[in-house]
Amino acid sequence: MHMMDTPLLLTSFLNRAERFFHSKKIYSRTSATTIHEFTYKDYVKRTRRLADALTKLGMKQGMKVGTYAWNHHRHLEAYFAVPCAGAVLHMINIRLSPEHIAYVINHAEDEILLIDDNLVPLIAPIVSQLKTVKHFIIMGDAVAVETLPIPNALSYEALLAEADEHFTFPEDLDENTPAGMCYTSATTGMPKGVVYTHRSIVLHSLAAGLADSIAICESDVVLPVVPMFHANAWGLPFASVAFGSTQVLPGPMFTPQLLLELFDVYKVTLTAGVPTIWLGVLQEQRQNPRDLSSMRLIVCGGSASPLGLVRGFEQELNIPYMTGYGMTETSPLVSLSTYLTHMQDYTDDEKMNVRITQGMTMPLIDTRIVNENGEVPWDGKTMGELTIRGPWIANAYYQDERTEEAFKDGWLYTGDIAVMTTDGYIKITDRTKDLIKSGGEWISSVELENALMSHPKVFEAAVIAIPHEKWLERPLACVVAKPEFKDSITKEELLESLQQQFHKTWIPDDIVFIDEVPKTSVGKFLKAKLREDLKEYRIQV
Amino acid sequence: MHMMDTPLLLTSFLNRAERFFHSKKIYSRTSATTIHEFTYKDYVKRTRRLADALTKLGMKQGMKVGTYAWNHHRHLEAYFAVPCAGAVLHMINIRLSPEHIAYVINHAEDEILLIDDNLVPLIAPIVSQLKTVKHFIIMGDAVAVETLPIPNALSYEALLAEADEHFTFPEDLDENTPAGMCYTSATTGMPKGVVYTHRSIVLHSLAAGLADSIAICESDVVLPVVPMFHANAWGLPFASVAFGSTQVLPGPMFTPQLLLELFDVYKVTLTAGVPTIWLGVLQEQRQNPRDLSSMRLIVCGGSASPLGLVRGFEQELNIPYMTGYGMTETSPLVSLSTYLTHMQDYTDDEKMNVRITQGMTMPLIDTRIVNENGEVPWDGKTMGELTIRGPWIANAYYQDERTEEAFKDGWLYTGDIAVMTTDGYIKITDRTKDLIKSGGEWISSVELENALMSHPKVFEAAVIAIPHEKWLERPLACVVAKPEFKDSITKEELLESLQQQFHKTWIPDDIVFIDEVPKTSVGKFLKAKLREDLKEYRIQV
Repeated sequence: MHMMDTPLLLTSFLNRAERFFHSKKIYSRTSATTIHEFTYKDYVKRTRRLADALTKLGMKQGMKVGTYAWNHHRHLEAYFAVPCAGAVLHMINIRLSPEHIAYVINHAEDEILLIDDNLVPLIAPIVSQLKTVKHFIIMGDAVAVETLPIPNALSYEALLAEADEHFTFPEDLDENTPAGMCYTSATTGMPKGVVYTHRSIVLHSLAAGLADSIAICESDVVLPVVPMFHANAWGLPFASVAFGSTQVLPGPMFTPQLLLELFDVYKVTLTAGVPTIWLGVLQEQRQNPRDLSSMRLIVCGGSASPLGLVRGFEQELNIPYMTGYGMTETSPLVSLSTYLTHMQDYTDDEKMNVRITQGMTMPLIDTRIVNENGEVPWDGKTMGELTIRGPWIANAYYQDERTEEAFKDGWLYTGDIAVMTTDGYIKITDRTKDLIKSGGEWISSVELENALMSHPKVFEAAVIAIPHEKWLERPLACVVAKPEFKDSITKEELLESLQQQFHKTWIPDDIVFIDEVPKTSVGKFLKAKLREDLKEYRIQV
Repeated sequence: MHMMDTPLLLTSFLNRAERFFHSKKIYSRTSATTIHEFTYKDYVKRTRRLADALTKLGMKQGMKVGTYAWNHHRHLEAYFAVPCAGAVLHMINIRLSPEHIAYVINHAEDEILLIDDNLVPLIAPIVSQLKTVKHFIIMGDAVAVETLPIPNALSYEALLAEADEHFTFPEDLDENTPAGMCYTSATTGMPKGVVYTHRSIVLHSLAAGLADSIAICESDVVLPVVPMFHANAWGLPFASVAFGSTQVLPGPMFTPQLLLELFDVYKVTLTAGVPTIWLGVLQEQRQNPRDLSSMRLIVCGGSASPLGLVRGFEQELNIPYMTGYGMTETSPLVSLSTYLTHMQDYTDDEKMNVRITQGMTMPLIDTRIVNENGEVPWDGKTMGELTIRGPWIANAYYQDERTEEAFKDGWLYTGDIAVMTTDGYIKITDRTKDLIKSGGEWISSVELENALMSHPKVFEAAVIAIPHEKWLERPLACVVAKPEFKDSITKEELLESLQQQFHKTWIPDDIVFIDEVPKTSVGKFLKAKLREDLKEYRIQV
């Protein structure tokens, strides 16, 4: 050996926070009226206590410990206590159906569950179906475990009170030791599990600290709106501890009003979430503006951001709004719509066209958009499937036969259809299954949706394929009007607006007005449901 | 496996530059009047050609290929062509003595040498002593190999002209494969070799891109003054390729005047070098100012920066001047004097006191200052030896028995005496061997030197220990006056100035005026030489 074989472990981040950032703060909203405020010093002490308490309950290296919780300080304690002790943190998506929740806990073989007190009603009904769980630990400010509908439940705070704040974590773990896991919804069947390792999370965190990515740093005040049960809250909690950022965890409620209040009061500099959140925040800020002068970056992912939304933040509020691409299988950060040097001279419109892409691929990650001829040209036009590889990309689903559908020849096949711009920026045009194939041509439902959602009267829009005798498929637009335009909006004005932007073959054959777009548990459009709802629909000729 | 086992290879940086940064520029000054300008696209092509040419000459995985060269584009080509092909780039310090040069080439067993045409006169006399070198390749714009005093020398450009620009690098190297090596001067005996791996260089490069470190990014224009034969030019060439920064390589000449011209003309944003360089640049800028408005950061290391120097850049020129700590054994970046959030409210003087420390330890790296009682308290006073560990820290000298002197219990013992500030910033007070032990108390020669060098009439100052009957050792100050004060400077005024800043036990017993401070091949004060020169000196009582 020539260089020290120091393993890449989350423990080094925790030790670093304890050593250098002990006076920095973490704010955690545990209810509508309660903010728990403490220092990193106390955070690390409590994290050691949690590890000690769980170890006394039987936690061992490799054991799965599930969390069923919102974004708060206790969840953050589990984020490090479990993996640093060598066990595996299974972050359960609380929005899954009861059937799926039971499945993922059983499939992961969770032996301990940490559950928010206000989420107990969602777990209690399925407790009898859980085959491997030995301990239920309830997190909350004042938990009366004996009154809960879960037998033998333990109180998180009572356990911590009796535990040792000097618990020491092993420093000789292999860096490929599993550290965390998340399940992702499948189009059909049960959710699929992804296992993260210490190495993958450490490298992903470093990538999030790069000046050319999100640039998380010590002076940041980070508020993750994206849930900690959703793709590691995009890695923000891990990176925040690594770099000593102040953290603001919004707890169970994140209405636009509450978020704006937190942004203002805590002088938040960096936040991240899905477009639906930012649509609401933008509207609220227009009506009841708060001071957002501290905000240096909003990161948006999960689904494409409509142009109007990006413009609202970047041009109207003067807050950089960076879109990105990622998925549970990719830790999740893969690409970000940063500006390259030559884009600094772009017009506002040109800049917005960069921001609505999914951006440039991060260091150490490879992306290729491929069709039957191999990698597609970087022309912003030729569509293909996005494939990804790199050290924080999964290479399998956890004990799942569906692995071979997505992982081939060392690449992850994402199921997303995209084009590559001339600068090498990824632009998602569709999911493979949502793509509209009309008369041999591919029509991007996402581009049509973005155009519709830029219309001043439209709140949301989803475009789906409907069967067509001649063209095989044709686009149908499903539109939710803004409340104030519900009665006045017309098909004709929307179609006319589209006709100015797209070739006539792309114009939807019809527009139907709906009350809301059905969504998945993580807020993505659930087009399969829409197609099902509208399967009897026939175009009026 | 759960995550892809993608190795951390320099190849991923080269591929990334080719894919995304092909239009970005590299400027290389190959002589006083010649600037070679080309794109990353052509850079990568030439790098592939070089790898092909070397492979045809017999380069294999694991083979050592030496470079004996200044900072220019051909050296940068070798920086990637050799390691990406699986061979090892040995960057030879051109300032070593002929005896040491012959030693390091023989000890590393270099089989191919790449030599600057203007440095041939330094190598030619020792060619007959080189036991393993099979090919001498001469780098230059117009090389007539047949006229050179090295038999059978080959022309770099002629080899590239015949090579394949589509040469493909292996992508399945183990990330612990040796990639580069540098030798560092020893206090006694021959230089000691350090071997870097792909993994260590990749992680070090990511660290250099962090927002809280040097933050190298795509929009940077990077000019490394630190030589590419000195501790990897502090990693700047690797990181610049990784992040697609514009590069300006200054070639064989870097007078203050030429550097300032390059800073101005190419709008350099980031540069790095030793204090001696910056002293010269500051003086020249005061006399013949150039436009430095593009400069966002000067990184300084190698030895401590006097307060007056830091103040000159930060307060007078308004350019952030960040000191750091590193050594050949540490890749080299270990710590940087970044400002933490709570320091943003510091007064100018308090901020300068941060900048003259060696700064805060980087992520993934552990530092401890230890004495016989273990880690010293963080009080800014208690001295101990700086020890370091982490994934880009060496764990051995290359085939060298002196390994066990420096590497113990998983830590590198640096031989530097330091204190830790209350914020956890490292402040070097001395080399173990330069520390002055007076009557049981340790006196820091570095602090006295910094105080002297802040005096308006002083250019440089070195403080050494001289034997003393009662106190065992006492400090003696050796001072170089600024030319304009050579005749007017007095011992008395310097001593008076020191008396205002230090306890009387620290005040040097005498001051001698010298013409220059002897320096090592990398510009550090050579106090051993000074002690030798002054060994007959006795204090006049």
